[in-house]
Amino acid sequence: MVKIAVMGHGVVGSGVVEVFYKNRESIQKKADCQMDIAHILDLRDFPDSPYKEKFTKSFDDIINDDEVKIVVEVMGGVNPAYDFVKRCLLKGKSVATSNKELVATKGAELLKIAGETGTNFLFEASVGGGIPILRPLSQCLAANDIIEIDGILNGTTNYILTKMIKEQVAFSDALKNAQELGYAERDPSADIEGADACRKICILASLSYGKHVYPDEVYTEGITKISLTDVAYAESMNSVIKLIGRSKKLKNGKVTATVYPAIISKDCQLANVDDVYNAVCVKGDAIGDVVFYGKGAGKLPTASAVVADVIDCAKHIHARKLINWEDRSDDYVEEYKNDVLSKYIRMTSNDIESLKNSLKQQFNDIQFLTLKDADENEIAFTTGELMEKVIDEKLSAVADMGEIVSSIRILNI
Amino acid sequence: MVKIAVMGHGVVGSGVVEVFYKNRESIQKKADCQMDIAHILDLRDFPDSPYKEKFTKSFDDIINDDEVKIVVEVMGGVNPAYDFVKRCLLKGKSVATSNKELVATKGAELLKIAGETGTNFLFEASVGGGIPILRPLSQCLAANDIIEIDGILNGTTNYILTKMIKEQVAFSDALKNAQELGYAERDPSADIEGADACRKICILASLSYGKHVYPDEVYTEGITKISLTDVAYAESMNSVIKLIGRSKKLKNGKVTATVYPAIISKDCQLANVDDVYNAVCVKGDAIGDVVFYGKGAGKLPTASAVVADVIDCAKHIHARKLINWEDRSDDYVEEYKNDVLSKYIRMTSNDIESLKNSLKQQFNDIQFLTLKDADENEIAFTTGELMEKVIDEKLSAVADMGEIVSSIRILNI
Repeated sequence: MVKIAVMGHGVVGSGVVEVFYKNRESIQKKADCQMDIAHILDLRDFPDSPYKEKFTKSFDDIINDDEVKIVVEVMGGVNPAYDFVKRCLLKGKSVATSNKELVATKGAELLKIAGETGTNFLFEASVGGGIPILRPLSQCLAANDIIEIDGILNGTTNYILTKMIKEQVAFSDALKNAQELGYAERDPSADIEGADACRKICILASLSYGKHVYPDEVYTEGITKISLTDVAYAESMNSVIKLIGRSKKLKNGKVTATVYPAIISKDCQLANVDDVYNAVCVKGDAIGDVVFYGKGAGKLPTASAVVADVIDCAKHIHARKLINWEDRSDDYVEEYKNDVLSKYIRMTSNDIESLKNSLKQQFNDIQFLTLKDADENEIAFTTGELMEKVIDEKLSAVADMGEIVSSIRILNI
Repeated sequence: MVKIAVMGHGVVGSGVVEVFYKNRESIQKKADCQMDIAHILDLRDFPDSPYKEKFTKSFDDIINDDEVKIVVEVMGGVNPAYDFVKRCLLKGKSVATSNKELVATKGAELLKIAGETGTNFLFEASVGGGIPILRPLSQCLAANDIIEIDGILNGTTNYILTKMIKEQVAFSDALKNAQELGYAERDPSADIEGADACRKICILASLSYGKHVYPDEVYTEGITKISLTDVAYAESMNSVIKLIGRSKKLKNGKVTATVYPAIISKDCQLANVDDVYNAVCVKGDAIGDVVFYGKGAGKLPTASAVVADVIDCAKHIHARKLINWEDRSDDYVEEYKNDVLSKYIRMTSNDIESLKNSLKQQFNDIQFLTLKDADENEIAFTTGELMEKVIDEKLSAVADMGEIVSSIRILNI
């Protein structure tokens, strides 16, 4: 009998308990052993839970129970999750977590400890909720050199952008709607400012390239400045605006890692990913493009990914799974302004004709965009492909002739 | 040092050798052991191959080499692959194969032998080429009860249908074009008649539900009868025609398994899967819909999936991976005509008005379709949802009033 402890009984934690008992028979068959949940850690009381005798408020009950071989961490946040997880691994207990902040900031260290103690530290649920991404990345694509990852990694922002694109609802109203439906938190900043997507691209990049990418190294920009005018201009380019987490492996040994709203062609598979759905596109040298698509969040999808990790821990109780990435030198993540791309720019000016002429001198491949009912003191254009810092320099040169209202990167995925 | 043998040096086999030596260093790191290819079995001569000293024409060189622990089978066909693979497993050698015909017809038996001999029998490349599907299905979705699988499983037919839909090229011309590009064989029947997709849905259904579904139990219909008129009518319904492999788990304990061209809404993720791309949509009770998308065939994608299995065999040389399905009683696959669905029907008649009236009496939810420039002796309609055999009975009742030209099932995916 393999005993399990579940730390945290919020949305995901209660889902883990529910999925485990609902499918216990088939789970045990797949794990090839008997299993039960011995402890559920939460500071709150759950007097009506059918599992109320399993609840504890003390981490000691878990760490001191030598029969507990697998610990599920679904508390969220770095503290005290980090301390608890570390102590579990050091005591020989494997850990399955859905905590993206923990993995994105402490992954390399915790994986190292797991390696030293012969335990497993698994975190499939930390990216893409229930969509299987991390395991295919580390196993199925093992024979590939992965060269690029692009993903719609946050369901809340994708829901808001879908509302803006499909129903012409302004950002603030779309956000309010998402909050009413429970898709966005009352404090939505971690979603709409990009921090959540940032943690996920860190985890994907770390696993794909074998070296830890930390959140504070990732240039991150949210979707709060996107307007319906920008959405309309994107439409005029047969494109849509999506919040894209991206990481590329460069020839110089470094990687890029960024999160920002981007204009992508409707021909791209990611352009058709709507509402709260997530999708990750992985490019490998042998395999070409592979896309994984599904619900990126939600109680049961996320819980089912955690339980799958628990099954894997149980199957590998004596044989470590080889998921790993290392810490690294400082100079690993490339400055994002060195990336080559095209930008969509919208400017206002009192003298549009002069501004246009100056812009033409700066940008060889400039394309002016047209929109029905456009403001007559406004122009929009795309710059052609250049290093981002070069684009910014060229725009500085015309700064006195008008004001930049919008600036959105264009990505070829 | 783990020694590998590769049986077959055709497109996939030569790709396996290429991918292995190209990425050997990272492959060995991921497998956590040293590996080399010791033998390549092929009856042909390859005097210019850099690995020519590894070639053999005799299977005995492989079966009698006790240092060979992993055998790659990429010969295709059931004979002699079945005999060779069986003997390898019985001798304690693990096998990785891309041979869908072998897995679809002999999977249960070979998995049973692998279980008894403590070896692995892996076949990720047999479905969806390089797209990781089988492993996520068996592992990541382990906590889910899978209730339905729908897939675009054949790249050749999807290319032909895409040509018909996007460029209004007739079937025979699209097929010719596919042959010119090497997407279709000179004898294209296994693709266009659906046999290839049939084998793949067998493998997916067997793995998902744990019991073997055999190809001869799957109702299979190809795309040869699809006309541009049907494509246009589907467009008028905001839908497209795709060749769909489908399997559902029924409440009575049985499963359905079918392959046929189907009309699906453009809102469905599978509708946007074009050209030679494949995609599989899996519905789980906890996870909801998950879609895996990528190139379903091709030398390097398929080879990279085989090599990933080789890595997994090497990692689990002493610990069997738990992929399994069992043989079963005869009465497991539900008669396809018991399925409830709607059909699109196109009929010709000398007396359209009388036919229309009779059809209205038969089908409560009938919807007549309109098309610009439609033949005046022709009508098209959808039947509303009914058991398929009931639809057919109702159509028989009006058989003397007109002739059915097209009949295509409509699926909600």
